[in-house]
Amino acid sequence: MRILGIDPGIATIGFGVVDSESGTQRLVQCGIITTPAHTSLSSRLEQIYEDMTQLIELFKPDAVSVEELFFNTNITTGIAVAHGRGVILLACQRAGVKIYEYTPLQVKQSVVGYGRAEKKQVMEMVKRICRLPAPPKPDDAADAVALALCHARSSTSLLYKEEREDCSTI
Amino acid sequence: MRILGIDPGIATIGFGVVDSESGTQRLVQCGIITTPAHTSLSSRLEQIYEDMTQLIELFKPDAVSVEELFFNTNITTGIAVAHGRGVILLACQRAGVKIYEYTPLQVKQSVVGYGRAEKKQVMEMVKRICRLPAPPKPDDAADAVALALCHARSSTSLLYKEEREDCSTI
Repeated sequence: MRILGIDPGIATIGFGVVDSESGTQRLVQCGIITTPAHTSLSSRLEQIYEDMTQLIELFKPDAVSVEELFFNTNITTGIAVAHGRGVILLACQRAGVKIYEYTPLQVKQSVVGYGRAEKKQVMEMVKRICRLPAPPKPDDAADAVALALCHARSSTSLLYKEEREDCSTI
Repeated sequence: MRILGIDPGIATIGFGVVDSESGTQRLVQCGIITTPAHTSLSSRLEQIYEDMTQLIELFKPDAVSVEELFFNTNITTGIAVAHGRGVILLACQRAGVKIYEYTPLQVKQSVVGYGRAEKKQVMEMVKRICRLPAPPKPDDAADAVALALCHARSSTSLLYKEEREDCSTI
């Protein structure tokens, strides 16, 4: 199964493509989409939409794992990011890719095993799980890889749960 | 000049099409786009995008007038609306229509002449300016017409300002 992790934003959007087979994960590619400051919100949204569509065409993921939004700090930034996230979800929906959403707490829980883990611990686990010499850079790309890993590990445990449920009905 | 006013949302999006010529405005059409509750956010976004694209193809506006977002009450609703607004802006941008954004205060100022006007006063002025027997229904449609009228009247005054500035350079 190929998973595209997305760390949503308006200026910088992280992406991470991970292949997950038989309980192991391999990093295929990761990076960032950036949009120029001092351009209109609508032209930045258009660029995000087109870049997202290209990413999906190029890597043909089976699933997209997108971070859920929570705002208790800067509401103005939050509104801009939500605009960007709307366009990201639209690109996935129109490309017919299944969308899964995870909170930062779920990502930490799944990747580190502890919901209140520090960012550094998440980066370290991304490095270990993908057997990389160092955590991916920049941080937005690494966050996106963590999102892809979260879905890989969550969907495995979901499968396990489903199987157990099936067994209990026999 | 034909203006498409948009009152953004995720469950209900108001639209109002207004023709403005020689300082008078005529209502062409208004209504709402609605998306079903209990469906995924991404499928609602897709519907909004497709309906917006159809509206633009059908009415061929010269400009779109979209309300700016401000949130000091329900942040969760605000985030959902911002997702929808992102997709609305994208549809306009991809259709090549010029986008103008106005705050509720600017709309009231322009339509009623008073930034702290009550909703009822705005509705009454929409009715009068468009020479209608009653304000448009539902309220989201009327709000969208007010946004279109706001741009019609603001762009006229901008034109006037430009002309004056031209004169002063002679």
